[in-house]
Amino acid sequence: MSDRTELKELGEFGLIDKIKKAVTISNKTTITGIGDDCAILDSKGQQIVVTSDMLNEGVHFDLGYTPLKHLGYKAAVVNFSDVLAMNALPSQLLVSIGISNRFSLEAVDELYAGLLKACELYNVDLVGGDTTSSINGLTLSLTAIGFQDADKIVKRSTAGEGDLICVSGDLGGAYMGLQILEREKAVFKGSPDVQPDLDGFDYILERQLKPEARKDVIIELVKREILPSSMIDISDGLASELFHIATDSNVGCTIYADKLPIDPMTSTVAQDFKMPPETAALNGGEDYELLFTIKQADYEKVKGWREVTVIGHITDKAEGVNMVGSVGSIIKLNAQGWDAFLSK
Amino acid sequence: MSDRTELKELGEFGLIDKIKKAVTISNKTTITGIGDDCAILDSKGQQIVVTSDMLNEGVHFDLGYTPLKHLGYKAAVVNFSDVLAMNALPSQLLVSIGISNRFSLEAVDELYAGLLKACELYNVDLVGGDTTSSINGLTLSLTAIGFQDADKIVKRSTAGEGDLICVSGDLGGAYMGLQILEREKAVFKGSPDVQPDLDGFDYILERQLKPEARKDVIIELVKREILPSSMIDISDGLASELFHIATDSNVGCTIYADKLPIDPMTSTVAQDFKMPPETAALNGGEDYELLFTIKQADYEKVKGWREVTVIGHITDKAEGVNMVGSVGSIIKLNAQGWDAFLSK
Repeated sequence: MSDRTELKELGEFGLIDKIKKAVTISNKTTITGIGDDCAILDSKGQQIVVTSDMLNEGVHFDLGYTPLKHLGYKAAVVNFSDVLAMNALPSQLLVSIGISNRFSLEAVDELYAGLLKACELYNVDLVGGDTTSSINGLTLSLTAIGFQDADKIVKRSTAGEGDLICVSGDLGGAYMGLQILEREKAVFKGSPDVQPDLDGFDYILERQLKPEARKDVIIELVKREILPSSMIDISDGLASELFHIATDSNVGCTIYADKLPIDPMTSTVAQDFKMPPETAALNGGEDYELLFTIKQADYEKVKGWREVTVIGHITDKAEGVNMVGSVGSIIKLNAQGWDAFLSK
Repeated sequence: MSDRTELKELGEFGLIDKIKKAVTISNKTTITGIGDDCAILDSKGQQIVVTSDMLNEGVHFDLGYTPLKHLGYKAAVVNFSDVLAMNALPSQLLVSIGISNRFSLEAVDELYAGLLKACELYNVDLVGGDTTSSINGLTLSLTAIGFQDADKIVKRSTAGEGDLICVSGDLGGAYMGLQILEREKAVFKGSPDVQPDLDGFDYILERQLKPEARKDVIIELVKREILPSSMIDISDGLASELFHIATDSNVGCTIYADKLPIDPMTSTVAQDFKMPPETAALNGGEDYELLFTIKQADYEKVKGWREVTVIGHITDKAEGVNMVGSVGSIIKLNAQGWDAFLSK
């Protein structure tokens, strides 16, 4: 057994890094491979961004509380979010599903109803994929594609010292919504006669079950004539994404705890769960908001934009990734992003 | 239970058709969506073909006799084959894997070694994907991309009456290789002390375990200045693919049993299994050869090309899909392609 290394020892990011190092790029149409929200391909100056995600039953979703229509919708939106994070609009989607005979045609219809609803709302064409059976459980694998001019694509590796760090919407809601769902599921398992008590949690439940990607923010950036200096979407939690930008851009950053946009309901529920709301914002994933940096000269252009909050700035690499607490203390952050292998 | 329709009642092609009907296309960059080996996207005259495939443990592969390296190689090649079938060369690949903790890092390394070997040999860049955990079993989902000028892309829907039907390589080998593997697995299960007897079956075992996509044929077509009038790769068996071309091109076709290219080893093993070799060629899948049609005027250009056999011609739609048997009898074919839902 001495030749066996467990995957969790390496972790998801370690494995991705290992794969990245083993890969060589040889086609001139490949601009950027592994390492951003999307790969970037070039077609005579017009660039194509492409991203894939896999969702497995029991790991990424629990059909005990996720309706199939919501699952389809969310799976599509999560991929659109990656395309948007490159400053491109998603235009095509490929969907592969593996389903066991536990599922009926009606169940598959529900799943596709959600996928197609998302495609309709985001103006994306479902152009292909694969439908196949699996021994047990449901597996979804999606690939989303977008087109953008080469000089308008925004990567996570191009933040510069002094740039302002911005985040769209609010953070931590999806994570607290998941805590509510898990709590009510546990109650239900204990006493199946008790109905789950989900009243009054609509906002954070929707953040978890039916998130939206920030196409509106990408469109508004164009209107405000802002080209971010770097961008990433927040799928694994703010801290994890800050580390991606800092590492890949070879910079440090400082954010301010009292600037973090947190919805009052997120705060209240976090306190019920004895968790600082900032922890939900920093470590909770699945908000699908956009984290981006702008040149200081663009500060006036984001002022008064309700959907965007400036939470800090980019520093020299030597300073690391820090948060200034509400009493002025400086907290060294670490990348507690969700890790596919550690969590199981 | 009256609202429950089993997936096998509809079948894989029925489900794809249903999804296709529910989809509307609204982006001008989408040229063709569901319904060919790849979707076709347009980027200012340069077109992009893209295809996705999902492979699930226990359905598409059996790790009892498929080494992980071979699995990775085959998974990549199968997708390259779809891109080649559009008359484009694959240039990028995205790989998503779902793995349970049953697998070690060394196992994942083996899988990627196979994927990367295929990428190296076919000059394809691995540009992205997803690495994630699954509750049990191994799931692979791949997306392959290729670029081609708009006027050189070849679809399955453009065969014309009188065109000659060509096939590359030989057929039925992968299927007979699978029969050998299944037989030896059954023997091994019955008496674990008996070593599997795979000697002398190298060619058909390699056809099953380590197939190649016909990039050489696509390159040779250019050298011979042949642009096929339609093309598809043979993944589900010749009969199934003939039906795809006939249905989508709105034509009929006639092939000749004695023209079918079948390797002597395939014939011998088929006879051992009491199966007519033509059945292996017509119904056995996974050969990954190319089935294409050419204008009669191009006949001289394929003459003497050892890798390509003319097996019949395209007819009027009313005649249907037929095979002329070795004694001159006419057999109506049906599309006994491998069906993902029926087979389980």
